[in-house]
Amino acid sequence: MNAIARQEPFDLNDPELRARAVAAARGDAPFDMLLTGGRLLDAVTGLIREADIGLVGALIASIHAPASRTDAVEIVDATGGILTPGLIDMHMHVESSMVTPAEYASAVLPHGVTTVVWDPHEFGNVHGLDGVRWAIEAARTLPLRMILLAPSCVPSAPGLELAGADFDAAVIAEMLRSPAVGGVAEVMNMRGVIDGDPRMSAIVNSGLASGKLVCGHARGLTGADLNAFMAAGVTSDHELTSGADLAAKLSAGLTIELRGSHDHLLREFVEVLNGLGHLPSTVTLCTDDVFPDELYQSGGLDEVARRLVRYGMKAEWALRAATFNAAERLKRSDLGLVASGRRADLVLFEDLTELRARLVISDGRIVARNGSMEAAIQSLDTAPLINSIKLPPLSENDFRVPAKGARVRVATIDRPRFTQWGEAETEIRDGFVVPPAGSAMIAVAHRHGKAGGTPRIGFLTGWGEWRGAFCTTVSHDSHNLTVFGSNVRDMALAANAVITAGGGMAVAKDGAIQAILPLPLSGLVTDTSLKDTASAFSDIRKAMDKIVDWKPPYRVFKACFGATLACNAGPHQTDRGIADVATGKVLESPVLEIL
Amino acid sequence: MNAIARQEPFDLNDPELRARAVAAARGDAPFDMLLTGGRLLDAVTGLIREADIGLVGALIASIHAPASRTDAVEIVDATGGILTPGLIDMHMHVESSMVTPAEYASAVLPHGVTTVVWDPHEFGNVHGLDGVRWAIEAARTLPLRMILLAPSCVPSAPGLELAGADFDAAVIAEMLRSPAVGGVAEVMNMRGVIDGDPRMSAIVNSGLASGKLVCGHARGLTGADLNAFMAAGVTSDHELTSGADLAAKLSAGLTIELRGSHDHLLREFVEVLNGLGHLPSTVTLCTDDVFPDELYQSGGLDEVARRLVRYGMKAEWALRAATFNAAERLKRSDLGLVASGRRADLVLFEDLTELRARLVISDGRIVARNGSMEAAIQSLDTAPLINSIKLPPLSENDFRVPAKGARVRVATIDRPRFTQWGEAETEIRDGFVVPPAGSAMIAVAHRHGKAGGTPRIGFLTGWGEWRGAFCTTVSHDSHNLTVFGSNVRDMALAANAVITAGGGMAVAKDGAIQAILPLPLSGLVTDTSLKDTASAFSDIRKAMDKIVDWKPPYRVFKACFGATLACNAGPHQTDRGIADVATGKVLESPVLEIL
Repeated sequence: MNAIARQEPFDLNDPELRARAVAAARGDAPFDMLLTGGRLLDAVTGLIREADIGLVGALIASIHAPASRTDAVEIVDATGGILTPGLIDMHMHVESSMVTPAEYASAVLPHGVTTVVWDPHEFGNVHGLDGVRWAIEAARTLPLRMILLAPSCVPSAPGLELAGADFDAAVIAEMLRSPAVGGVAEVMNMRGVIDGDPRMSAIVNSGLASGKLVCGHARGLTGADLNAFMAAGVTSDHELTSGADLAAKLSAGLTIELRGSHDHLLREFVEVLNGLGHLPSTVTLCTDDVFPDELYQSGGLDEVARRLVRYGMKAEWALRAATFNAAERLKRSDLGLVASGRRADLVLFEDLTELRARLVISDGRIVARNGSMEAAIQSLDTAPLINSIKLPPLSENDFRVPAKGARVRVATIDRPRFTQWGEAETEIRDGFVVPPAGSAMIAVAHRHGKAGGTPRIGFLTGWGEWRGAFCTTVSHDSHNLTVFGSNVRDMALAANAVITAGGGMAVAKDGAIQAILPLPLSGLVTDTSLKDTASAFSDIRKAMDKIVDWKPPYRVFKACFGATLACNAGPHQTDRGIADVATGKVLESPVLEIL
Repeated sequence: MNAIARQEPFDLNDPELRARAVAAARGDAPFDMLLTGGRLLDAVTGLIREADIGLVGALIASIHAPASRTDAVEIVDATGGILTPGLIDMHMHVESSMVTPAEYASAVLPHGVTTVVWDPHEFGNVHGLDGVRWAIEAARTLPLRMILLAPSCVPSAPGLELAGADFDAAVIAEMLRSPAVGGVAEVMNMRGVIDGDPRMSAIVNSGLASGKLVCGHARGLTGADLNAFMAAGVTSDHELTSGADLAAKLSAGLTIELRGSHDHLLREFVEVLNGLGHLPSTVTLCTDDVFPDELYQSGGLDEVARRLVRYGMKAEWALRAATFNAAERLKRSDLGLVASGRRADLVLFEDLTELRARLVISDGRIVARNGSMEAAIQSLDTAPLINSIKLPPLSENDFRVPAKGARVRVATIDRPRFTQWGEAETEIRDGFVVPPAGSAMIAVAHRHGKAGGTPRIGFLTGWGEWRGAFCTTVSHDSHNLTVFGSNVRDMALAANAVITAGGGMAVAKDGAIQAILPLPLSGLVTDTSLKDTASAFSDIRKAMDKIVDWKPPYRVFKACFGATLACNAGPHQTDRGIADVATGKVLESPVLEIL
């Protein structure tokens, strides 16, 4: 099961394996495994037919009439179930589920996900190239096929933030030389590409030169910007913001990765596609980010497909997007289709609406049955990931903005998700700015040891009334220590709890920690089980609900983790200050003018 | 325009080119060319919209609202027309049109065909590896993109026929190392693959090892045979025999190349696809073999699309099959779609039913306008292709079957296309077998100098009454000199006319040549213009109509050229005798028994 040693897809080209498969298909030798009595959903035609399937090694050798063959080393009864190809998650970050790759694999394989395309840019932002190497090595031994991508935007907005690493084109090219790496991951520094910034242009060009995928993050791009982004060579997007955006991006010719993490958009997407009357072959599915409790409760890419079906997409469309279309995008003609000569990655679903997987086969082996793993999972040593929080304890004053005089005009960051610049007047008390009425604070402290760790502070408006503080080292994408709060006491308390834990999340209120989730590996993930991680994360959610009032779809808990993503349009607080990608400027302090 | 030097698709990865395209898309630099006022058929969604298109070098840089940009070195008025990607012919043999690659390119480019996937197995059968090298070199300098394939079955049925060459796996592997070669061409020796014959298995395996396409010819395959053929690694088919065959092959997971050369099947294909309700992305189009008069009168792949539309296929389906689906199959993400960042291969059609191309752009250059070439065409020296007919003049007795005694039982080859074994009794006169009543004769003489050139003779039943003779050195795939006829005088006459011409076709009747088409290059093609070749071939057709009564769809003129294709099921006359691929046996003489 060694992804590099076997050099997929070339492992299937073993002449002896092919000869065995041909002989078995012909009827002159038994199959290694024979699945009998099931029905097959053909991903190409969308038709369902009764079929038995014979496997030889990792190959599908034969698809034939029910009961026409009985000669096999192992016969598996598939009666009542529907066979499909293994699901392919086209864009995801293992780190978002806050568990190790091994634990992630154990979580999604029983749901029928047999391949994921992993952009390890969270590990990359924290540990640099070593983090990516660790990810490649961790993936190598798993029964879940992990196609890695080279993180293209570490940091996402150079000059506007400091991450734990800085990947230039030479580093990207080095990663692309690995057979485990399938392309360049979501190019998020859109402005850099569009403006022809030498660094980003060189990164995209190194992707083109490799002949591998150059994946995009085309959030909000239209018109000339979208044309320029695509002219540079970027070919996909998952950052859709509406049904109209989907229609425009499809027509523009981008490959689409419909993303499960933004559920409120999925109905619109289904409506647009149903209106089109056919599923374009450029539509694929992805999870992007799945929180541990969601992963534990609902699964991975299967949940995206399930919801699309629930929202009105034909099951055969959802599954075609999740299998065949994905394989085409990956130029992996061994994947994505149940056909003789292809790789035996198969799922036996109980039905096509609930998508409960009875049996999951990867490379011709049963890896999961009835929701539980059967294959062994080998974990890679996580020691290289610890001690990543390079910060001393912080004091309450670290969360205050110093200023002289009596009154001050400050810049504010208005609204989550689609942030806008704002301004407010407020008073100065004891040498510090009093947060403007109705605002909350955001503080970001560099935590990678590349610069000082004093938090930079901003004032948030439109984020509702806060009654405590939340600290997280999961903070896209530089993952600096980020604290939201209404008062410096709770902010310092939450921050210090997280620093002590070696990374993670904490909620403080009224001078007491309400919930803590230690994430001692990279400040992003934990070595404990998904079940325990899901439970602890769920406690964080509940604690958060007590200190702030959410207002979906944009003012939501999830928005906290993207609040520092400075590559997106609008002002974003980073460890350098309040950054704006449109101007390339950073305000170290929100103080605009002493009045 | 050098296909090897520019190493497609990597020519588009020039950083300076990309930077220019990005700047132009952004609006900071003019386009090299701007197409204004046209409508665009989006191959992905099938929707038509108004759009202007800006090109930079060989790249599409921008697709934008009409009249929103006017800055370009050259502005081309596309008013009233519909823009689509350039058409891609997924499987064809230039040689079938009996003209040079340069002349073929001049014929199809003005029709909107910008890419062809050429299996030069006719040249390969005659000249061996040198023939394929000549084809690669001839393609290299043309404005028509020619992706070559390595001929997999030279000869098509080893042991049953002798061609001018013998390509084993080592030769195939050598061809596959050329960047001009995109894969292994139609694997026709189906029995060899299915039975695990070492030669054919090694050829298929060399294709798999190259990571390039392994294309099929799965004529009549079903059930275990089809599974075995696919398990070996073959992934496409164009040899469909019915609508049901199409449905079965689609469901099996083969990529389909719907073939224009068998028009009588196209309506069935349209019916099956319309019944499916969507166009699977595995459906592509091809011409396979186009006679010179058909090419001259109707065009190449555009004619296949046009007929599909006429027979009830939606135009957007036909064009998607001919463009985007083809590019996906080829794993060429630079082709097949009008999108920023892709290659500027574009056609401006007057409409979507007649598909008359007003303008054809390849690599960002206008190559044809209003049905005429604008780009220069460079022909390769054809001297290496002459003197390929290695035969002395033949005598009338060479076309007789010697036998002793008075009566004899002979084997017959019954019916064109789907041949069957038959038997007949007849008399012996003057030491030669008298052809059985109602039969015609077929004689095949080895013409490559690898063995003696004495014709081997067979008796055809079910081919109608013949009243003269037809000789051709175009005779798939070994292209030995093949003569059909009712009497030895006309047969010898026609044969000697062809031998004298250095190859080609001739029709004789009543002791006189009725028509002759010299094909002195390889015995397959001519250096003269398509117009003249079409006219001469048309004369052959007319002469043939006088010496035999055709009965479509199977007893047709075209069947003469495939009568010796011994890889297909049933008895076939070859230069070795009457061959049967099922038994691997060859009857040197049709005489079964002296009675």
